[in-house]
Amino acid sequence: MAPSFAINGDFSVGRVTPPSATGRFAAVYSDVQNSRIHHAIPLPSVLKGPFTIVDGPQSSAAGNPEEITKLFPQLFGQPSAALVRSDSQAAVPNQKLKIGVVLSGGQAPGGHNVISGVFDYLQERAEGSTLYGFRGGPAGIMKCKYVQLTADYIYPYRNQGGFDMIRSGRDKIETPEQFKQAEETVQKLDLDGLVVIGGDDSNTNACLLAEYFRAKNMKTRVIGCPKTIDGDLKCKEVPTSFGFDTACKIYAEMIGNVMIDARSSGKYYHFVRLMGRAASHITLECALQTHPNITIIGEEVAAKKMTLKDVTDYIVDIISKRAEDNYNYGVILIPEGLIDFIPEVQHLIAELNEILAHDTVDEEGLWKKKLTDQSLKLFEFLPKAIQEQLMLERDPHGNVQVAKIETEKMLIQMVETELEKRKQQGKYKGGFRGQSHFFGYEGRCGLPTNFDSTYCYALGYGAAALLQSGKTGLISSVGNLCAPVEEWTVGGTALTSLMDVERRHGKFKPVIKKAMVELDGAPFKKYASLRDEWALKNCYISPGPIQFTGPGSNAISHTLLLELGA
Amino acid sequence: MAPSFAINGDFSVGRVTPPSATGRFAAVYSDVQNSRIHHAIPLPSVLKGPFTIVDGPQSSAAGNPEEITKLFPQLFGQPSAALVRSDSQAAVPNQKLKIGVVLSGGQAPGGHNVISGVFDYLQERAEGSTLYGFRGGPAGIMKCKYVQLTADYIYPYRNQGGFDMIRSGRDKIETPEQFKQAEETVQKLDLDGLVVIGGDDSNTNACLLAEYFRAKNMKTRVIGCPKTIDGDLKCKEVPTSFGFDTACKIYAEMIGNVMIDARSSGKYYHFVRLMGRAASHITLECALQTHPNITIIGEEVAAKKMTLKDVTDYIVDIISKRAEDNYNYGVILIPEGLIDFIPEVQHLIAELNEILAHDTVDEEGLWKKKLTDQSLKLFEFLPKAIQEQLMLERDPHGNVQVAKIETEKMLIQMVETELEKRKQQGKYKGGFRGQSHFFGYEGRCGLPTNFDSTYCYALGYGAAALLQSGKTGLISSVGNLCAPVEEWTVGGTALTSLMDVERRHGKFKPVIKKAMVELDGAPFKKYASLRDEWALKNCYISPGPIQFTGPGSNAISHTLLLELGA
Repeated sequence: MAPSFAINGDFSVGRVTPPSATGRFAAVYSDVQNSRIHHAIPLPSVLKGPFTIVDGPQSSAAGNPEEITKLFPQLFGQPSAALVRSDSQAAVPNQKLKIGVVLSGGQAPGGHNVISGVFDYLQERAEGSTLYGFRGGPAGIMKCKYVQLTADYIYPYRNQGGFDMIRSGRDKIETPEQFKQAEETVQKLDLDGLVVIGGDDSNTNACLLAEYFRAKNMKTRVIGCPKTIDGDLKCKEVPTSFGFDTACKIYAEMIGNVMIDARSSGKYYHFVRLMGRAASHITLECALQTHPNITIIGEEVAAKKMTLKDVTDYIVDIISKRAEDNYNYGVILIPEGLIDFIPEVQHLIAELNEILAHDTVDEEGLWKKKLTDQSLKLFEFLPKAIQEQLMLERDPHGNVQVAKIETEKMLIQMVETELEKRKQQGKYKGGFRGQSHFFGYEGRCGLPTNFDSTYCYALGYGAAALLQSGKTGLISSVGNLCAPVEEWTVGGTALTSLMDVERRHGKFKPVIKKAMVELDGAPFKKYASLRDEWALKNCYISPGPIQFTGPGSNAISHTLLLELGA
Repeated sequence: MAPSFAINGDFSVGRVTPPSATGRFAAVYSDVQNSRIHHAIPLPSVLKGPFTIVDGPQSSAAGNPEEITKLFPQLFGQPSAALVRSDSQAAVPNQKLKIGVVLSGGQAPGGHNVISGVFDYLQERAEGSTLYGFRGGPAGIMKCKYVQLTADYIYPYRNQGGFDMIRSGRDKIETPEQFKQAEETVQKLDLDGLVVIGGDDSNTNACLLAEYFRAKNMKTRVIGCPKTIDGDLKCKEVPTSFGFDTACKIYAEMIGNVMIDARSSGKYYHFVRLMGRAASHITLECALQTHPNITIIGEEVAAKKMTLKDVTDYIVDIISKRAEDNYNYGVILIPEGLIDFIPEVQHLIAELNEILAHDTVDEEGLWKKKLTDQSLKLFEFLPKAIQEQLMLERDPHGNVQVAKIETEKMLIQMVETELEKRKQQGKYKGGFRGQSHFFGYEGRCGLPTNFDSTYCYALGYGAAALLQSGKTGLISSVGNLCAPVEEWTVGGTALTSLMDVERRHGKFKPVIKKAMVELDGAPFKKYASLRDEWALKNCYISPGPIQFTGPGSNAISHTLLLELGA
């Protein structure tokens, strides 16, 4: 029978009962949101029955183990843990637990499923347990702001995007007073464990808390979970951070649409800036999914010590060549953090911060004499609007607001100027019109893909298993992700093994190094082997909207697939 | 039983063979793109068997019929035509046809399906017919640039977004020489008919061509099809323009994601500008789908003669009230054409154009004395960046580039200034951070929804039926869209009946008036009845990505449903 088309999100149909007066559900859900609530998530086999924990060999650190051991005397050297099936029903004690969970930092699709995974584990494996959600990020721990998470409370957030179940925040537990506050909270709630869902900083913090609690002989254990759409928290045991898959697919949908638009009208170059400040994984993954004409990877720009002029010329060369084939359109991907990868821009900004902090800026431009030659040259090279932005928009400390610089617009103007020059020299005969885009917030809270839904649920379920098994200072690790879900591995990796130190204010600080795009890694090499073809031919792929059933609905990211060598 | 329309049997799944060296398919399709090619489209019952044409009563015009009759002496008064099932196999002569098709103006999802519909009709009902696609819009007709559309050529574009099968263009057939060129082309190709897929201007043009061909006793007939994501080409017989459904759903997906983000972090007001310059249908539809805190509808701003200050105050009042409930976040929708609806802004821009064309702008600002008091006041009220944009960015004619003004950023700055003022007066205690978005190009070339795929296919199939039946000067009309597809009605509406005249350069010009948001229409009234609740409570709905199967996949727009009273 032919379908009849009916309304989406009818004002009366499918109303979801609010779990609380201030909760999410004063309103109704869309059909798709509703259908996702009821989506059943598969579990890796090892989590379906009794399991036991097998410890690996003693671990070290990613760098400077002698400093890491001083910073983490209790935890350094811990083995990683793997869950394996066990025949014994009592492999792990089935005792009641009190667990807290916290979301830290920027949103990433799947966070709610990590919490659902923890909750379901407790329901199924530790009957009578209690789960608390700290509200508004780590500040919720320090201020002891929490909510008890019940089945009813969690239910409407299953497989939904966002962090709004308990919200997130960017506060950090850093000072001795703040550690004391955290101690008071977990003691007040009598917590056996804490699950910290966050990025590199938050997981470092999780490990510091674990160390602190252990040093004080407290029972509270801490397990981290790898969250960030940026994809820069990963290692051998943690193949990807959650949210990366969904965010990239949302951006790739938009990029694919813009590509078809570019080809249909034939008159625009679309400059697309993509979220991802520190590393360019998102940009690379979106390139692999969509085949744009030009992709700028920050790590390559840094490795080749490219200047802004070099980047501009690289773009302009391709645009000129395309014009010879009568292609006066295209799509160009730019990572949000591009200018952070260009040393000369960093120097200019540092000099500007210094000058503007101490001097007044005269109309005649005498102040510019204080710039070094190189910085002055760069400053004069910049479009006027960007010059003004650098001079005018200051943060409360008087510093240039680098994050506010719209790199895509800056590049459009620089490319335009250079093309005009080449036109006058008779070297370019095309027509150029730039359109700018920034895709960022749209991707952080989308409905998680089947992959992120499943991965997150396993991360949470596994985190609870580790806590019940008495583990602390580990990051929940789910692996073998290219295999069927049944075959995924589950365990925990010593957080100290991911750490190195950085010198800050004369002290060593532990850090989990951000995983950058590796120029000799499989994803970059794949892109590099294809980019010349993509540049001149139009090999666009339009992934379309994320599907939850049917073809493409269980696709895995190219990055993961290439890195795992599957 | 699902209708089968597959025309050419087997095509190998997966890699798509390029129909031409410069065509779409040097690369492979995504899984979702591929699956859509094979999606079977249902047809209205009336198109499944023999049909006959039933003419309605004589028609008039939307306004000034006495002028329209002078402009269209051949066609004025034509009845509309309805297709009805017929028992006779020979109700419409099964003769071979030569038909041309052209895409005109901005892209809208579904255009390829209109062409597929025309093609399939010819294959099934007029064996041996030929279909030509004019390349690059109306210029393709004038320059006789075309391609013959074969089954192989069309195949990979079925149910795909974009206009890249034959591209589009914004040229118009206007001068006597251009009409002559069109005449030569259709005679050279011996065309029986021409299908013009476009918006209000293009359909007016289609009617002028139909009149011209008829007046010259040529056999070439012309049928229009209603295309525009803006949704402003519609009337009783043409309930919606194609592309509106898909574009709104793409924007609503992004808005829904941003809403969850706003609620999760609790710290941003997202100002979302949405495409749709002339009318605010897209903004209204997206509001009905997502329930934002604030929605600005251009037509209401105009009707209430609101100033920019009024709009700012309206926003600021709601933000202040929300701050009292500790909601320092929200989502605000703004139509692209907002400032076109504010008379004072139009006056200012007209004065600026005049002044800047004749005078130099002195640094001291003496030039401002030439502004009227009201315009000067408004100019001073504008944020500095916008003042500069108005002064600096001129088009080749020296005019202010209104389209380049980023209204959402302008409003953020004005709102910020006003909130600061209120804060100093002790009337506002919240924190305000604005994030700007523009959703436009992302929506024009997405994969068409099931609704747009089906609707467009019927529009094209019906257009070919009208041509075969000897009709000209009609716009393809598919109705009863809230019923199951079997019950959809198919026919054609006299284009002259949609027309009025406008006085331009001392002459009457025929125009199809854009359908604006009606303030006493059901969609606006629905929104108006709910907006106070949406403003202060958070009733966000996140529609999620467009699904092609399963829940929500056959949803119809709120606008259509409310307008049809279903």
